[in-house]
Amino acid sequence: MNIKMSFAASTVLLSIALGLVFAGTEVRSQSAASDHPQYSNGKLVRPESYREWVYLSSGLGMSYSPNANPNPLFTNVFVPQWAYRQFVATGKWPEKTMFVLEERSSETKGSINKGGRFQTELAGLAVEVKDQTEFPDKWAYFSFSGEAKEAPPNPKQSCWACHDANAAVEHSFVQFYPTLKPVAEKFGTYRKQADTIAPEH
Amino acid sequence: MNIKMSFAASTVLLSIALGLVFAGTEVRSQSAASDHPQYSNGKLVRPESYREWVYLSSGLGMSYSPNANPNPLFTNVFVPQWAYRQFVATGKWPEKTMFVLEERSSETKGSINKGGRFQTELAGLAVEVKDQTEFPDKWAYFSFSGEAKEAPPNPKQSCWACHDANAAVEHSFVQFYPTLKPVAEKFGTYRKQADTIAPEH
Repeated sequence: MNIKMSFAASTVLLSIALGLVFAGTEVRSQSAASDHPQYSNGKLVRPESYREWVYLSSGLGMSYSPNANPNPLFTNVFVPQWAYRQFVATGKWPEKTMFVLEERSSETKGSINKGGRFQTELAGLAVEVKDQTEFPDKWAYFSFSGEAKEAPPNPKQSCWACHDANAAVEHSFVQFYPTLKPVAEKFGTYRKQADTIAPEH
Repeated sequence: MNIKMSFAASTVLLSIALGLVFAGTEVRSQSAASDHPQYSNGKLVRPESYREWVYLSSGLGMSYSPNANPNPLFTNVFVPQWAYRQFVATGKWPEKTMFVLEERSSETKGSINKGGRFQTELAGLAVEVKDQTEFPDKWAYFSFSGEAKEAPPNPKQSCWACHDANAAVEHSFVQFYPTLKPVAEKFGTYRKQADTIAPEH
């Protein structure tokens, strides 16, 4: 930097530099708003950007029943980057973590494919939220009907009770997320009996 | 800002502000290094952070043959955030795009699950790269054996020829990525005949 730079010139540069810093802060804040739970009159607002979150795993036709489903759905699970990074660092989900469970239809025949199944249109969207500030039971569950922009919490006896009884890390089914299971085991947050549950649901 | 601030004080503040800007740039550059292709003596270096990239879709046991596989693999596809954003904005994959195809074993019985299939351990890792600077054929394909840290390009007559003949957008199978298919259709980059190919492979 030219040390003979005038006061005026340095002030202009300072303003530009601070502007860049604040602009960066603003971009981060906007991004953060959409990957934390937002509520409207007690309903959860549909998280629109979850396809850019971190993917945890998929299942196809996962079921409590051994009967084969002729039209199985794929289920894809996503969490926000900020929550994923905290889990990797601690083995625990931070307050305000959201899990999106996306259901997609499946097909066998299409283009060059003749065997197995691939994913097609959206068939359902459910969200699990860890939010002790909003919910006395800490975890809450929402099912978005069709393209609904908001969803009320589901009754406690459905999702909540099953997650409470069977999930490996608090209310999350880390037993089905192969990259996170060793993380939770390392930090001692993995409930080992979740692997060997005899299902009653 | 106090307009009576001395030249020295404004210079200090300017330095701090610029430092913050440069620090931000450095963080982005480090992140960018791992989501662009890196080569070592003509081999591709294994991309280690792909599980934090954007997920495109999964298949289970996808095959050119209608015969059922008793132990089907899940295949999960990921691309870096920067390439995904450019595709969403233009319908085209930018130079240096990497696609990771992750294979995972599947199981039916585990924890509370009795039907369908869920993902378990890593079974394979393949990468497709669009890199005209490195490869005269523009697209190159790599299969990482086990936990190998580097992989040489595969022969042209395997992956390259099939992608060239059958993929919907250049060499990428967007016909199997349900959120990107409408993007490519909107931008006119979708090869419609990819939907109705009679497979010969």
